[in-house]
Amino acid sequence: MAPTYTMAGGEGPNSYSQHSTYQRALLEVAKAKINGAISSKLDINLDLNRFNIADFGCSTGPNTFLAVQSIIDAVEQKYPKETQDENIEFQVLFNDHSNNDFNTLFKTLPSTKKYFVSGVPGSFFGRVLPRDSLHVGHCSYSLHWLSQVPKGITDKNSPAWNKDIHCTGFSKEVVEAYHNQFMIDMGSFLKARGEELVSGGLLFLLGSCLPDGVKMSETMKGMLLDFMGKCLHDVAKEGLIDQEELDSFNFPIYPAHVAEFKKVIEENGNFTIEAFEKISHANEEFPLDPNFLATSHKVSFGGVLESRFGKEAMEKTMELIEEKCPKILPQLASAKSGMQYFIMLRRN
Amino acid sequence: MAPTYTMAGGEGPNSYSQHSTYQRALLEVAKAKINGAISSKLDINLDLNRFNIADFGCSTGPNTFLAVQSIIDAVEQKYPKETQDENIEFQVLFNDHSNNDFNTLFKTLPSTKKYFVSGVPGSFFGRVLPRDSLHVGHCSYSLHWLSQVPKGITDKNSPAWNKDIHCTGFSKEVVEAYHNQFMIDMGSFLKARGEELVSGGLLFLLGSCLPDGVKMSETMKGMLLDFMGKCLHDVAKEGLIDQEELDSFNFPIYPAHVAEFKKVIEENGNFTIEAFEKISHANEEFPLDPNFLATSHKVSFGGVLESRFGKEAMEKTMELIEEKCPKILPQLASAKSGMQYFIMLRRN
Repeated sequence: MAPTYTMAGGEGPNSYSQHSTYQRALLEVAKAKINGAISSKLDINLDLNRFNIADFGCSTGPNTFLAVQSIIDAVEQKYPKETQDENIEFQVLFNDHSNNDFNTLFKTLPSTKKYFVSGVPGSFFGRVLPRDSLHVGHCSYSLHWLSQVPKGITDKNSPAWNKDIHCTGFSKEVVEAYHNQFMIDMGSFLKARGEELVSGGLLFLLGSCLPDGVKMSETMKGMLLDFMGKCLHDVAKEGLIDQEELDSFNFPIYPAHVAEFKKVIEENGNFTIEAFEKISHANEEFPLDPNFLATSHKVSFGGVLESRFGKEAMEKTMELIEEKCPKILPQLASAKSGMQYFIMLRRN
Repeated sequence: MAPTYTMAGGEGPNSYSQHSTYQRALLEVAKAKINGAISSKLDINLDLNRFNIADFGCSTGPNTFLAVQSIIDAVEQKYPKETQDENIEFQVLFNDHSNNDFNTLFKTLPSTKKYFVSGVPGSFFGRVLPRDSLHVGHCSYSLHWLSQVPKGITDKNSPAWNKDIHCTGFSKEVVEAYHNQFMIDMGSFLKARGEELVSGGLLFLLGSCLPDGVKMSETMKGMLLDFMGKCLHDVAKEGLIDQEELDSFNFPIYPAHVAEFKKVIEENGNFTIEAFEKISHANEEFPLDPNFLATSHKVSFGGVLESRFGKEAMEKTMELIEEKCPKILPQLASAKSGMQYFIMLRRN
């Protein structure tokens, strides 16, 4: 079975729900774009007065609530109540892996919400909703997670074996293995959404990618992943992690290049690219603060590391990250920019 | 805010999912009836090849999975694949309070399921699904829970004050207060389902009620509730529960009489009663075994008692129930029969 990666649940200080300001800043910038897009590009049959919105990879909130509310506000503006025979009823489908903390999601729903709520468990690389049932889909900061670490990457005898944690050691074979996995996964994502979305429906994709020509290892995120890899190796040297096991460990993460995104969308053929833009916001890159960086790593990667190497090794790694972080700040400051993308696709 | 009552979550030895054999036996008997009903009475427009099934008050499984599978099997038998242009896609909406353990529900979904899954948090006394979006609804062993303990019942200065835990002390006013609350709640349930179900859709209701003329206190379930009340009083005498607090404590439980059910359905006016039957099964009444009875009480009522009186008092009460149970077995053996109902309603 493919492993699944979910963010830290609950509402505690190390939970995803308390540490998602980075993504939230992007959402706020995207709100205006979503509003404009729905106003000018949404063209669907609303005979049933029912409007279904899905957030794919919703995690536990609160960002998912902001995102869907942006969409609802825009739809209500496009179809004013006074022009409708019956009020439009909204249903929001919150999708994430079945081991996502839906209990927390459901307990923290906004009390002001005016929509029907539905939690949809399952991998968004496959179908999770009925055919032609979705009007607007949304997916934020989720598509850099692959469905699995590509085959060969963790196999000592494969030419694509990647002994390092992630990106500095990228050989041609490693790059190809990650690229192929992305094309498969993103292709599956688009195939499923193509079946779920009604004709004329919209799909908004937001997240981190790479400008063409920029390598992951040249960006701050790549450097930080490498840095976490070094810290894990230090912990292995102390004996808390088995070196052999670490050598076969990699994250299923791949920030694709713009050209790769465009290619897989074109290959799918069901969607028209209405927008593919770089967007900027105040929190575009991580703040260069050791404590913030350590906590961010813990929230995003702590669960995976703990389940693989145990709690003690995970916590030691996080301590090292915080301790050694000041040393890499100058390097981080010289990183090339990644790219925050806003993609709008219309179902043909 | 009205309190909400959910069954013990998780998968441990005291969880609902391990102790729902009683309800399951009813479901198995109901399967044949559901099959016949769908075959002869379901008459809906299936243009979209999409079929939505909801289980209201689903808890954590596995009974809910059996129930919805019965419905799917029957629909597939009625509309054979070879007669359809496109396969019918099923979506199952699992509804329960937002504090239900949906995480466990989602982690224990049958691996063989051939339907899209949706968890719908919220009280079924209000709308939880979009208008005209549901083809078949199901509700099993949930409608004896009221939305709240009726007003006055817990108020020392009200004529409807019920000092006892539940039913032996029923005065005219107490009976009236419970009856009124049931009519309000069941009325709300039917109003919401009437809006959610498509015309021709079916609603299956299963559970425990009372034959007309039989008092709750004359049935085994009534006797057991009274008995639990006595045990709680004993625990209060030992000082583990505050007597004042116990005097104002009641369960929001009301097994309605057949005539009350029929009246509220007729008053709603949206449904035709296609069946209202007494059904029998091997586990019709609880087995007269002290250990089983104690565990059943713990699973069903332990959570409420613990949150109200604390863990120690709850556990002491359960110990007393097991210890004293043999003494009331002769009384239980002489109880009048309650009734397990199978109601089928068709949306006009």
